[in-house]
Amino acid sequence: MNLGFLLYPGVTALDVVGPFEVLARVSGARAYFIADRVGPVEAQHRLVLHADTSFEEAPPLSVLCVPGGPGQLDCLDNPHLLRFLRAAGERAQWVTGVCTGSLVLAAAGLLNGYRATTHWRYLECLRDLGAEPVSKRIVADRNRITGAGVSAGIDLGLFVAGLLAGEKTAQSIQLQIEYDPQPPFRSGSPDVADPEILDAIHEQTQALYDRRRAQCREFNSAA
Amino acid sequence: MNLGFLLYPGVTALDVVGPFEVLARVSGARAYFIADRVGPVEAQHRLVLHADTSFEEAPPLSVLCVPGGPGQLDCLDNPHLLRFLRAAGERAQWVTGVCTGSLVLAAAGLLNGYRATTHWRYLECLRDLGAEPVSKRIVADRNRITGAGVSAGIDLGLFVAGLLAGEKTAQSIQLQIEYDPQPPFRSGSPDVADPEILDAIHEQTQALYDRRRAQCREFNSAA
Repeated sequence: MNLGFLLYPGVTALDVVGPFEVLARVSGARAYFIADRVGPVEAQHRLVLHADTSFEEAPPLSVLCVPGGPGQLDCLDNPHLLRFLRAAGERAQWVTGVCTGSLVLAAAGLLNGYRATTHWRYLECLRDLGAEPVSKRIVADRNRITGAGVSAGIDLGLFVAGLLAGEKTAQSIQLQIEYDPQPPFRSGSPDVADPEILDAIHEQTQALYDRRRAQCREFNSAA
Repeated sequence: MNLGFLLYPGVTALDVVGPFEVLARVSGARAYFIADRVGPVEAQHRLVLHADTSFEEAPPLSVLCVPGGPGQLDCLDNPHLLRFLRAAGERAQWVTGVCTGSLVLAAAGLLNGYRATTHWRYLECLRDLGAEPVSKRIVADRNRITGAGVSAGIDLGLFVAGLLAGEKTAQSIQLQIEYDPQPPFRSGSPDVADPEILDAIHEQTQALYDRRRAQCREFNSAA
């Protein structure tokens, strides 16, 4: 059971490590960290992860997982990466994306006509790329499973573990990683966050939002 | 604001990346990944993280964070590592541990007489090492903050972000990483898990548990 996690510069580490930490505990699973080339990949905030598999070397996958992050923007300008994803995704048993990783899946043509989700700030970008955005923690449509922002990868990992190995296995993994979340604040979604904090994030991310929207729209019209 | 994350072979990646992903978003924070020597460090399940700072090079830290994992056992036999932690911990503003990382903190003498927590399976090991075990998601005693198993590092990160930069900042980070957990199962703690699953984990981890208990008791008596 091969798990393939895409890595690229500027990926958000928790988008990768959340589902990895869950899915690597499924009996018989083996994780591959797949990038343009084998070697170090600098994630957001300077954490360096190691890609052990190039696109050309990647084995057939039971699970393809595409994480998000600020580097997601460059993925849409990388035909080598998108070609790999399209081919790997068409053969994979389960095609998954976390956060803005869903936008990369969509750009690779893997979410055309599928319901999907992404980070709350960027839901509209999914529509630009031919998917049907749904504001939900996990969205499953046929074999495409997508998760909301960053930390949703843990929930997604457990959901996919249940599909791969049954609910008992997923529940055992949940207990192994003591996933009994108790956030010290109640601010995890736009619905519950302090409106001032929400407004501030909207403002801080406006330039990034505009770049993403413009890129997604342009991408769509060029496809 | 320097954040220091200990790395060692066999560390559990999510123990590191959970608090990292939160704390690295605090304005002015800079993360250091600190190990015996600079270079690749193989975490549990074959993910390779890069240590960018040796013990000798580590700067004074606002937050010291010690993750757990199966490799935690070897940390207790590594006087170089324990000496570094003791010195760094005595100077750090906040001394934190996730999962069995708390046992390493305790072995370094940093939890003597402190209330602390760890992964549910290994709470008694804390007592062996001179700390007072508390079964709770996050335990704060003076400047020592410890978290329960693996995934608790995200909750711990938000708690510490609140201490470092205020609750508004922590809430903003929670919204940025969309930490609105919705586990698809209810199995994250021994209190709620299916008793059969709990028994199976007890059995699967018995050898590791016995090794940890024996090592902690011996360590304590030798100290």
